[in-house]
Amino acid sequence: MTISTLTERALIARLHARVPPPPEWVSIGMGDDAAVLVPERGCHDVVTTDALVEDVHFRRAWSSPRDIGHKALAVNLSDLAAMGATPRAVLLSLALPPDLPLDDFDGLVDGFLTLATTSRMPLVGGNLTRSPGPLVLDVTAIGIARPRRVMTRAGARPGDRLYVTGALGAAAAGLAMLQADHAASPDDEAAAECLRAYRRPAARLRTGAIVARNRVATTCMDLSDGLANGVRQIAEAGGCGAKIDAASIPVHAGALAWSAVRGGDPLTLALSGGEDYELLFTVPPRRCRRFLAAIRQAGEVPVAEIGVCTQGPDVVLVRDGQRTALPVGFSHF
Amino acid sequence: MTISTLTERALIARLHARVPPPPEWVSIGMGDDAAVLVPERGCHDVVTTDALVEDVHFRRAWSSPRDIGHKALAVNLSDLAAMGATPRAVLLSLALPPDLPLDDFDGLVDGFLTLATTSRMPLVGGNLTRSPGPLVLDVTAIGIARPRRVMTRAGARPGDRLYVTGALGAAAAGLAMLQADHAASPDDEAAAECLRAYRRPAARLRTGAIVARNRVATTCMDLSDGLANGVRQIAEAGGCGAKIDAASIPVHAGALAWSAVRGGDPLTLALSGGEDYELLFTVPPRRCRRFLAAIRQAGEVPVAEIGVCTQGPDVVLVRDGQRTALPVGFSHF
Repeated sequence: MTISTLTERALIARLHARVPPPPEWVSIGMGDDAAVLVPERGCHDVVTTDALVEDVHFRRAWSSPRDIGHKALAVNLSDLAAMGATPRAVLLSLALPPDLPLDDFDGLVDGFLTLATTSRMPLVGGNLTRSPGPLVLDVTAIGIARPRRVMTRAGARPGDRLYVTGALGAAAAGLAMLQADHAASPDDEAAAECLRAYRRPAARLRTGAIVARNRVATTCMDLSDGLANGVRQIAEAGGCGAKIDAASIPVHAGALAWSAVRGGDPLTLALSGGEDYELLFTVPPRRCRRFLAAIRQAGEVPVAEIGVCTQGPDVVLVRDGQRTALPVGFSHF
Repeated sequence: MTISTLTERALIARLHARVPPPPEWVSIGMGDDAAVLVPERGCHDVVTTDALVEDVHFRRAWSSPRDIGHKALAVNLSDLAAMGATPRAVLLSLALPPDLPLDDFDGLVDGFLTLATTSRMPLVGGNLTRSPGPLVLDVTAIGIARPRRVMTRAGARPGDRLYVTGALGAAAAGLAMLQADHAASPDDEAAAECLRAYRRPAARLRTGAIVARNRVATTCMDLSDGLANGVRQIAEAGGCGAKIDAASIPVHAGALAWSAVRGGDPLTLALSGGEDYELLFTVPPRRCRRFLAAIRQAGEVPVAEIGVCTQGPDVVLVRDGQRTALPVGFSHF
């Protein structure tokens, strides 16, 4: 049974039935022309939008409907995390192929709403439309943050240390496994983590919020487009350079193993693979101790110091004593 | 030259170059992980999302890129208007077929930004991605409104009068002309208005805001899905019925003319055609005078009284003394 057997109204009702009652800050929720939100006193609004398009960002053969719904929200949560914002509300716009099985629709919605609920983020608006092509999930996430605790990409200074959360390259390795039709053995925990990192990324909301609250980082951004792109963006926005120590980059064990099997360079997965929804911070040396205390307080994910911001525009990678330019991450549209 | 000749980064830079500097309430605009907005004191946030999908909501053969960009924002502005909200900021997510001419991309963006600018609505966030299928424009509009001046769909009471703005059926007639490949004569002003209503609808922002400020309407919604659907939704949300006087429905001259040529019922265009971004209000009798004064004060569009809310659940149309059920507006997804 596909969604085309239902009217738009019935499909909307089916979605509504899955949405839990909203918290008190939602004055008017779904079902009207627009939703009305009560602002949090003393906070600014933080807003971001990001889309997942079938056969560009996911394949239905590689991710379950629940995975896809989860990821559509997670990539937006990661943007809020990078600003140090707390989730407030979310809007979901779906363009659905008529042959989408109704079970898949339910799965998409459940994957999305499960993450929204655990993130204390009511779904306050939505739109359902038919798609004559791919399945498209467009999400707008709204967060709140205290004005002087917002973290941006701009503000890195020479001497600031660069830190990343987690281990990198996992999602890229997971995608490579799916592309190669690689059947990981069921007890290969590292491979399973890579697939999970690709299918159901976790946003570092708690880490972002606690670092922001402590005002110990000069910049923060998420690594959705890879570490190399992140370092370049922060250097450019701060008018500085950066020197990255290759040996310090925390490459995920599954990415190392995959590269060993396939003969690639695991560092490429970590630098250019993208889809690691980890956070990149710059921290002045005198604040590093407090930064690390905040990371421990968050208790979400470890960090690794991977380099330092420098004078001048060069963004370099030091590997086995050799300095090379950090990859640009060039990609055709 | 198509957009696929540019990198994603170059395309984003091209978009950024067209965005005017933001007003003071945008603390952090485009280009970071998320935007940061300073709330307006004493106001609530009003948020809505709506998408246009190629070959579902528009065809590139029937609308110019500027039309499409304009309409993607206008349909969202109409939702803000129906709440009585004032525009504050907007986010635009585009899924672009790689063969889209670069000129068309520029046109889309310009049509969107021109309306955003005249609506005093800075573009604060966006997302560009490739689409393997249709062009998709997903817009999230953010407005503000004073808490007790928000208008919703719920609140109509028996005895309330029903009013609509403007003349109905124009957009549906315009679409029918395009579907029939009808070449309107250049001096047929009514036909030109129908095409314009379809391609570049105008949201009734000023009317919505002034009626809301005067607190003279019990409900308001926009007629994106047609008058019959609007009346039914308001009756259902208010737990009342409605009686519509067919002779009072303001049918657009172009819709009348088109129906005369094609032999259809012009009332069907007005009731079920949809895409009239006009507003439907309910107003208690003792407030009708003040309501009409607010409409005159707005000076945007006339209103017509088309019926009354009744006890009981029936939603009826009275035509030539005959009572019939108002069409349901049933549509398969």
